[in-house]
Amino acid sequence: MKKFEEKTVNKDVLYEGKIITLQVEEVELPNGKTSKREIIKHPGAVCVIAVNGEGKLIMVEQYRKAFERSILEIPAGKLEPGEEPIITAARELEEETGYGCDRLVHLQSFYTSPGFADELVHVFEAKGLYKIENAKGADEDEFVELHEITLEEAEECVADQRIFDAKTAYAVQYLRLQRILREQAESKLN
Amino acid sequence: MKKFEEKTVNKDVLYEGKIITLQVEEVELPNGKTSKREIIKHPGAVCVIAVNGEGKLIMVEQYRKAFERSILEIPAGKLEPGEEPIITAARELEEETGYGCDRLVHLQSFYTSPGFADELVHVFEAKGLYKIENAKGADEDEFVELHEITLEEAEECVADQRIFDAKTAYAVQYLRLQRILREQAESKLN
Repeated sequence: MKKFEEKTVNKDVLYEGKIITLQVEEVELPNGKTSKREIIKHPGAVCVIAVNGEGKLIMVEQYRKAFERSILEIPAGKLEPGEEPIITAARELEEETGYGCDRLVHLQSFYTSPGFADELVHVFEAKGLYKIENAKGADEDEFVELHEITLEEAEECVADQRIFDAKTAYAVQYLRLQRILREQAESKLN
Repeated sequence: MKKFEEKTVNKDVLYEGKIITLQVEEVELPNGKTSKREIIKHPGAVCVIAVNGEGKLIMVEQYRKAFERSILEIPAGKLEPGEEPIITAARELEEETGYGCDRLVHLQSFYTSPGFADELVHVFEAKGLYKIENAKGADEDEFVELHEITLEEAEECVADQRIFDAKTAYAVQYLRLQRILREQAESKLN
């Protein structure tokens, strides 16, 4: 889909960091005028919706410097160069939570901030969760704490903004929808 | 919530643009070591879940330079300095779609990219939609096209990635959940 395409007239890469790259592009608009677009390039990321054998959601608490507080999120992490998203998902699940799983089902992918960034997040659901003995730990500069909470507790966390990011809000809503559909299917059987 | 707080040791503002600011912070980690955080400051944004009198979702198609294609999104836009999110929501709904509404209900807010950005999106649901005669148009450098589609069509768009961003994926799931809950309530009444 290329409707209203904006052609690049000039591109300046202003910063190449460890994770993000900033470039400012002068673009030609559909009406022939020019405008400036400030764009963040990002390697992409994964997140994992994981529910343990007791029906509890696997969450990690992490400090987020961008807005100076910690929040509860589903396990997530950046893609390493050349790494398949499903491999990243399995790795991050183990490193952040100590859990492994039998299967990772890709649910969907979405851009997080289409107005200024190309970060694409791939959402997976983990099936058949189990604890890994001697699991690999998180990265050296990453401090995360595991929480295992019910869906009702997660919905309370959404309401009081301990859960406060798009992918985790999506995940909580996804699990509520799945539960209702499952209950409907069961009540039709009975 | 300040658990695992990372204290700023040094901050360099590397770019101040029209929309985003890039700053690189040296932080002290909970273990006393230091690390670098690349952070994008953003004014925040709103998005509006809007369904017209025929039950169709109000969507806008827009070219997104960050990933060089156009996608279908719910109406959205950045906060202007000092502007209340509900005012931004009403303004963007009119400018992007020509619709007004009787009420805007705040559903929730979420950070879009907690790993590197402080962009907070406020999600509203519009109630009592009506067409505005001589509506204000979009910004001069913004080209958007209105689409009005059923929930089923929106779910197809999610599947084939014409809908491809987090807030719109959230909105489609929200509307499916609301429809199921409404149908359940109606079937209990009958």
